[in-house]
Amino acid sequence: MTGVSVSHQEISSGRPVVRVPIKPTAHDLATGRDPERVRIFDTTCRDGEQSPGAAMNAEEKLTLARQLAVLGIDILEAGFPAASNGDFEAVRRIAEQVGNRPNPPIICGLARATAGDIERCWEAIQPAAFPRIHTFIATSDIHLEHKLRKTRSEVLDIITEQVRLARSLCADVEFSAEDATRSDPEFLHEAFRRAVAAGATTLNVPDTCGYITPNEMYTLIRGVYENVPGIQTGDVILSVHGHDDLGMSVANFLAACEAGVRQVEVTVNGIGERAGNASLEELVMALFVRRNYYARVFGRDDIASGQSEQQLTNIQFKEIAKTSRMVSSLTGMVVAPNKAVVGANAFRHESGIHQHGYLRNAATYSIMSADVVGAATNAISLGKLSGRAAFRARLAELGYELNEDELNRAFVRFKELADRKREITDADLEAIVSGGLKEIGVEHFKLKRVQVQCGSASIPTATVTLLVMETGKEETDAAYCAVNAVVAQHGLDVELLEYSVSSVTSGIDSLGEVMVRVRDRRMNRIFSGYAADTDVVTASVQAFVNALNRCSRNTNTPQPIHPQHSSA
Amino acid sequence: MTGVSVSHQEISSGRPVVRVPIKPTAHDLATGRDPERVRIFDTTCRDGEQSPGAAMNAEEKLTLARQLAVLGIDILEAGFPAASNGDFEAVRRIAEQVGNRPNPPIICGLARATAGDIERCWEAIQPAAFPRIHTFIATSDIHLEHKLRKTRSEVLDIITEQVRLARSLCADVEFSAEDATRSDPEFLHEAFRRAVAAGATTLNVPDTCGYITPNEMYTLIRGVYENVPGIQTGDVILSVHGHDDLGMSVANFLAACEAGVRQVEVTVNGIGERAGNASLEELVMALFVRRNYYARVFGRDDIASGQSEQQLTNIQFKEIAKTSRMVSSLTGMVVAPNKAVVGANAFRHESGIHQHGYLRNAATYSIMSADVVGAATNAISLGKLSGRAAFRARLAELGYELNEDELNRAFVRFKELADRKREITDADLEAIVSGGLKEIGVEHFKLKRVQVQCGSASIPTATVTLLVMETGKEETDAAYCAVNAVVAQHGLDVELLEYSVSSVTSGIDSLGEVMVRVRDRRMNRIFSGYAADTDVVTASVQAFVNALNRCSRNTNTPQPIHPQHSSA
Repeated sequence: MTGVSVSHQEISSGRPVVRVPIKPTAHDLATGRDPERVRIFDTTCRDGEQSPGAAMNAEEKLTLARQLAVLGIDILEAGFPAASNGDFEAVRRIAEQVGNRPNPPIICGLARATAGDIERCWEAIQPAAFPRIHTFIATSDIHLEHKLRKTRSEVLDIITEQVRLARSLCADVEFSAEDATRSDPEFLHEAFRRAVAAGATTLNVPDTCGYITPNEMYTLIRGVYENVPGIQTGDVILSVHGHDDLGMSVANFLAACEAGVRQVEVTVNGIGERAGNASLEELVMALFVRRNYYARVFGRDDIASGQSEQQLTNIQFKEIAKTSRMVSSLTGMVVAPNKAVVGANAFRHESGIHQHGYLRNAATYSIMSADVVGAATNAISLGKLSGRAAFRARLAELGYELNEDELNRAFVRFKELADRKREITDADLEAIVSGGLKEIGVEHFKLKRVQVQCGSASIPTATVTLLVMETGKEETDAAYCAVNAVVAQHGLDVELLEYSVSSVTSGIDSLGEVMVRVRDRRMNRIFSGYAADTDVVTASVQAFVNALNRCSRNTNTPQPIHPQHSSA
Repeated sequence: MTGVSVSHQEISSGRPVVRVPIKPTAHDLATGRDPERVRIFDTTCRDGEQSPGAAMNAEEKLTLARQLAVLGIDILEAGFPAASNGDFEAVRRIAEQVGNRPNPPIICGLARATAGDIERCWEAIQPAAFPRIHTFIATSDIHLEHKLRKTRSEVLDIITEQVRLARSLCADVEFSAEDATRSDPEFLHEAFRRAVAAGATTLNVPDTCGYITPNEMYTLIRGVYENVPGIQTGDVILSVHGHDDLGMSVANFLAACEAGVRQVEVTVNGIGERAGNASLEELVMALFVRRNYYARVFGRDDIASGQSEQQLTNIQFKEIAKTSRMVSSLTGMVVAPNKAVVGANAFRHESGIHQHGYLRNAATYSIMSADVVGAATNAISLGKLSGRAAFRARLAELGYELNEDELNRAFVRFKELADRKREITDADLEAIVSGGLKEIGVEHFKLKRVQVQCGSASIPTATVTLLVMETGKEETDAAYCAVNAVVAQHGLDVELLEYSVSSVTSGIDSLGEVMVRVRDRRMNRIFSGYAADTDVVTASVQAFVNALNRCSRNTNTPQPIHPQHSSA
């Protein structure tokens, strides 16, 4: 793996070398990973799905979790088991299936610092080969006063008690001090000392509000590193978590690494609450492109000198583009064309001067190449004569493992598409499969037929036939208004918030992907629906029906506990 | 303006205070701006439109430039006059019209370090009340060797000669050392000393490849600050420019400000070449939210102590959301929901714990509020009974100033929309006007009628009637393929690259905005087309026709010079 090589004088960091002699964990030993690497803790399945409308069902989470394991992440935060039965189930299935593959990641569940949350979390993650309990409580005065309504000393006692409980269940315990970056540093050190004494093996510093700047982060982490026993000796790993409200989360994380952090909590495409979390792909590629710089700061002379080919993370870079597309289609969170590393324009050179220089020597205007992250290819893989075995094999290569039932349904969709489109690309396959996954679950309404007439000079007319599963009756009316009219009689009251269509690949016979977001007026919750079809109108109606089914499922099942989630 | 107030212990920066005693410029004095502020140099009209497919025509640039002046930017880089006649014309019109409003920004044009470019640039910007020539040449060894094929001493001589020429024409001259962050710092200092001696008043450090990290940037800028005369005395202003390839551009800029930089080159929504430029809104809001921290580092005790209400920039924060929407619709570059400050989710709190805390005290999970950036409202402003005067007045409030002809056409579109949609929101108005602007220019093909029948159970049929302006004949065929077939006979060969639809506002009678990107196979250039209509199919065909018209205009007019643009 070379990317684009550049040789020029590097600027000295001006900061002291911080080598963290982390003792190999059981997971490091079992998977042969370098104990001194920067550990990638992926929270796309937990904090990532807290993006409004981005919630994933258990099937979707499982699919993503499998791909994250292939990507090579170290810790997979699968969910918040105490939040709802659905989330518990998803975490448990990920622990069982992804947590026991060859070369598995650690499977982690989130829990507030209460006995109920911690025990429920343990129940969910316990099947994994390497389980981790991640428990948290806030340490900033503003959170203590306005949210927890507890004193500092009460919080310290809770930390001791609950971390001890977690450690009695699980050998791998992470403790997070929520809103750490707005906490009194002295109190933060004390909270961390309590957590270490009670058995925590990882300490996490969350920038919950996306408030800190890189230089402050460096100073804060240096303080923790120097004042909390266990970190300098490599017995306890220091971690950061953060949000992108001021656009600085990745830079904050890298500054934290310069000061002794060796675990970073990230999401694919940077999705998450509000402006999202630090983006996995940006952080990992910064450690790849600037490997010599960071290796020097980390005291890894073996790497900086070129003696070792070792990377600073365990990530398989070539899986990045594919994982990004999967997250975008599973959550409906679009990626802007100017997004670093995974945006459509990230490797495109537009201006004449740039193209001119790039053609003479790529390094003049480029610090990495598209093929390093697997973005260069959108290979044409299958056609209408491809059989079921080839279809299944290609899906497996793309990271999708389907059961027989799912495979059959996807294969039918594939054949339908192949009748209309000459060449089926990997992106088409991804759209077919993620569309299929989205539909899994109880369907209250099934789309039977759509027929539309429209244009510039006529009044649009549309007829939609829905099969209402409860009654078994087919009901027909005009689209959207129509669908709404039918479902309103069955107890739903929704409003269309957003509607977007994008083409999966280029060309006029491309699949159109449609994403709709609706708000359930009574629950005041947002649900998304996704569908892909060569006919955009059909995809649109199907996406709307899918969103209604999600809505309907949530209306008819027990509500998640409140508060349902958090961003530790 | 308060936003969300937070009071808690701040972390010390640990870096020395750098107060830069900038002498008030003629522009500062005329507009009453604080000379020590961080100057916002907006390059959305120049580097921003280098995003593939995001090119704007002169009308669009002029509209955006007017809004940027309202936003309160200090320097507006309007284009690269020597690149093409179209760009020259756009810069000249911006210089005339926006450069002579009350409280105008400086109008800047880009020029390579050649006499031809510099003279052409001066011709374009000269009508502005405060014109600036921005000239550049690369200083990194990799650019010298592979692109310029010049020695260091040849480059130094060019700097002396061309900066001197620029200064003989214009009192305000900016010099950029392209690829500065990969240049030998000693050589960079020498290049800057030459530029200052020849009359440069601003020195710019571009991170052309998006390669540097914040701490390196700090070290690099300190070196320039200490080794180039004129900066510490406040006679020369130090500037940064940078790209987001590793997701760190905003953090890099803020680190540069800590080291003495007082001008930052940014784009709205962070659009630009590859992963884009540093984002204006993130940078500005970081300086707002963390005003106390930066005021202390900048030695502005009057601000840090609360004695002064002065902000660190001249930006009118409430104009940010509107400007962001305008840039997105004029360039077709979508904004991800998780984009900081201007994304749809940036101020949405999803999880139960967050909502719970937020309701008790907003500051628990929020560091700024949506209304500060003007994002809270999507006011319903007009209905079908609204007249022409109300329509014009509301558009002016939204930042759109149309001539009679443009206003008439927009009003017709407004009335058509009002017949189909009960309430017209500001976002609808913006879509109507930007859609109208997009169509301005010579039309080779005019869409007369579209009629479509489609659905899940039928073969889609579509008829499109195009009026071919050259022949005056109407030609009818089936859509897309159809349109292509007609235009192929008139000498165009294009391929559809991307197709996307998004709703402007929520609700089922919302306008659909369609963006298509096509590649002209012979020129190998990308063109975008935009249209908005309540009927998505009609909008789609119209957008495609608009893209073809752009293509056709470029085929039939002289080619821009090569190289056409750069990213200094």
